Amino acid sequence: MYSTSTTSSSPEFLEDDIRVKPNLDALGALGDTGWYCLGAVLWAKNYQLPTVVTALPDVTKNSNGVIMSCSASIQYREPAGAKTDAIIHCSFLSNTSMDLVITGSGGTLNLNDFIIPYEESSAAFDFTLGAKFVELHIGWNVMKPEKVVVNSELPQEALMVQEFARLVQGIRASAFPPDRTWPEISRKTQMLLDAVKKSVDLGCKPVYL
Amino acid sequence: MYSTSTTSSSPEFLEDDIRVKPNLDALGALGDTGWYCLGAVLWAKNYQLPTVVTALPDVTKNSNGVIMSCSASIQYREPAGAKTDAIIHCSFLSNTSMDLVITGSGGTLNLNDFIIPYEESSAAFDFTLGAKFVELHIGWNVMKPEKVVVNSELPQEALMVQEFARLVQGIRASAFPPDRTWPEISRKTQMLLDAVKKSVDLGCKPVYL
Repeated sequence: MYSTSTTSSSPEFLEDDIRVKPNLDALGALGDTGWYCLGAVLWAKNYQLPTVVTALPDVTKNSNGVIMSCSASIQYREPAGAKTDAIIHCSFLSNTSMDLVITGSGGTLNLNDFIIPYEESSAAFDFTLGAKFVELHIGWNVMKPEKVVVNSELPQEALMVQEFARLVQGIRASAFPPDRTWPEISRKTQMLLDAVKKSVDLGCKPVYL
Repeated sequence: MYSTSTTSSSPEFLEDDIRVKPNLDALGALGDTGWYCLGAVLWAKNYQLPTVVTALPDVTKNSNGVIMSCSASIQYREPAGAKTDAIIHCSFLSNTSMDLVITGSGGTLNLNDFIIPYEESSAAFDFTLGAKFVELHIGWNVMKPEKVVVNSELPQEALMVQEFARLVQGIRASAFPPDRTWPEISRKTQMLLDAVKKSVDLGCKPVYL
């Protein structure tokens, strides 16, 4: 899995934004753009936490020690021997990009707008199943990956408010207990993010979860 | 930069191919599929060697100690402070994929068939220049990345033979000295590959070039 979230920042942002101040949003690019990368990895792994997290040596900090750009290796090691490896990269210093690539043993999916979609009404990903080369390796057996388009009746922000209203309504009208799904997702994302930060602080030592 | 080359292998390949034998093609997936990833990084950096190479902890070896899958961080640190960071991933254990993503300060290019193109007659990459979000962050200012199509009159293998014949002809007919371009590219790719292998062998310690 490869997940990236980068955005280029204005000189004013890099000077004055709360995300570049050690006494304000001190997690910098990791806490802002990295959140989405780590959330995507957790989403793909059904919100299972990984075994170990290791920051990569390419970290860039500003003069106050706040992360402006970093990468991490996220490893899942199942007891039965199955492995999943993810790499994330987040940055305030590159052109806006947000790629999610998942390659399994039998297929690959690629999408390039997994955080803010290109447009609100639909989003698409490329899907390749069982790719092989044709004879003499002069091309692929699938001429192009399949483009899977998912239409959305409501934008994601509206769906979030709708879901929130639904949960509040359940508690108020039907005395449902508070839903644990979203707090658990937030908590796990924060735990993973803190593990990457700890690995950065330890000079790229592995951090076990 | 992110560059990957993965291919799923049959049980026979993983058992008997020369690329999985320590006394034959002992560089395994790194020597086979990793070659293209590292070549792409060098190509993008105009064949300048990086400053330091660090293997990632996600390496998988077979029972004979040959690399079946690995990743590496490739760092360029210019004297003037400019930085380029690349991550490569190569594997015999995943579905066939070959992505190259380059994100600079002002633009991004993505291509997903950089080694064997989907088809011989043309290849395409997605190009995004100065991506920004529209107001309220409900979409991008560029609705979609631009698809840049490059037509090819001859497939890459024919171009290689044509180039080789041209160079031989130059030596034989015009007494040109042997061309140094291609040996230099091969040599640098091998040096970079050896540095990744050394970092793997050292347990992911950085290797300076």
